[in-house]
Amino acid sequence: MKKGVFITFEGNDGAGKTTVCKAIYKKLLEQGYDVIYTREPGGSQIAEKIRDILLNTHNQSMDPLTEALLYAASRRQHLVEKILPALEKKQIVLCDRFIDSSLAYQGYARKIGMSSIWSINQFAIDGHMPDRTIFLSVSIETGQKRMDIRGEKNRLDLEANDFHQAVRKGYEILCEQQKDRIVVIDAEPELDTVIHQTMASVLEVVHAYE
Amino acid sequence: MKKGVFITFEGNDGAGKTTVCKAIYKKLLEQGYDVIYTREPGGSQIAEKIRDILLNTHNQSMDPLTEALLYAASRRQHLVEKILPALEKKQIVLCDRFIDSSLAYQGYARKIGMSSIWSINQFAIDGHMPDRTIFLSVSIETGQKRMDIRGEKNRLDLEANDFHQAVRKGYEILCEQQKDRIVVIDAEPELDTVIHQTMASVLEVVHAYE
Repeated sequence: MKKGVFITFEGNDGAGKTTVCKAIYKKLLEQGYDVIYTREPGGSQIAEKIRDILLNTHNQSMDPLTEALLYAASRRQHLVEKILPALEKKQIVLCDRFIDSSLAYQGYARKIGMSSIWSINQFAIDGHMPDRTIFLSVSIETGQKRMDIRGEKNRLDLEANDFHQAVRKGYEILCEQQKDRIVVIDAEPELDTVIHQTMASVLEVVHAYE
Repeated sequence: MKKGVFITFEGNDGAGKTTVCKAIYKKLLEQGYDVIYTREPGGSQIAEKIRDILLNTHNQSMDPLTEALLYAASRRQHLVEKILPALEKKQIVLCDRFIDSSLAYQGYARKIGMSSIWSINQFAIDGHMPDRTIFLSVSIETGQKRMDIRGEKNRLDLEANDFHQAVRKGYEILCEQQKDRIVVIDAEPELDTVIHQTMASVLEVVHAYE
């Protein structure tokens, strides 16, 4: 690789991000690529402690702006400790959720404003935007069904249905605004089809830097 | 009071902020004012947990931008849970350190840039700037001596001397830029003199809103 390649995976809860992202990781490994799979907090002890505060269901009184700043802080630490060192080593980095999650969840769905969230996250990532972002597109109903099957619920999963609708709308705005970076993959079909289409998009950007 | 009055206290480590701030609190109480004394994290459970991460001396690998975002998050939560409800009740709020600490410590001394720190903190405080800020001015030597007497040291106290010099320079820039809000009090003289001069400045702004 001429340089490291930074690819992020986005979508509503239950879109299948983690499953697809890990399948792509395995396929790239099999094809001999030097690749890592990561997600925030990604093994960073500091980012992990920040996440503990965010995901603790007892913290119901958390202000939305505090939440947004904590996500940005966790993102920063994970970027510095895990993503940037991997990109330095010219690895492919597959990251399960990144800046677009904050823009869709906090910026749009929580109504903080996408431009404010963009601004604190630009501070956090300091110019390190993904080379490509895969948006896995599913209906709220499909996402909800997959979440029910998963069983586990955290504070965010407990949000009402209209929150998830708003998250989806936020993502749609981003997909429209940043067409060059974000590729939309229909994640309703069976898993093999979704993985196949995602892999094609991932290889396209990987080949560009070989 | 016609409205709540928000007064913050700033200065280098060892300037005497806490001592002076608590003395002013006691004097205002004696004069019959409805006043609270607070400092971040100020009893907010969430802000407290954020502070635990910041002040834990084992977290030596914390990135400066992560640190800045965590201070902003802690500030936001403390503002929402403690300061704003008190101002709503038309109380006088005396707050030991606020936005200027981040500007001087992270913005200037850690070289992140005062404008970046200003921007994430404006997001955090959402327009709620102090009505007045008291800057207690001491030499680095005096500050250091007072810190030595105190005995306790945290991660920030362990920083080298030139860091404290840079913090002081950052404060000087702010005092120059925001003359209308920040009042400089010489904190070298004996405590009674410092408290007397600070009280005069506090009463000036309090009287303006009576």
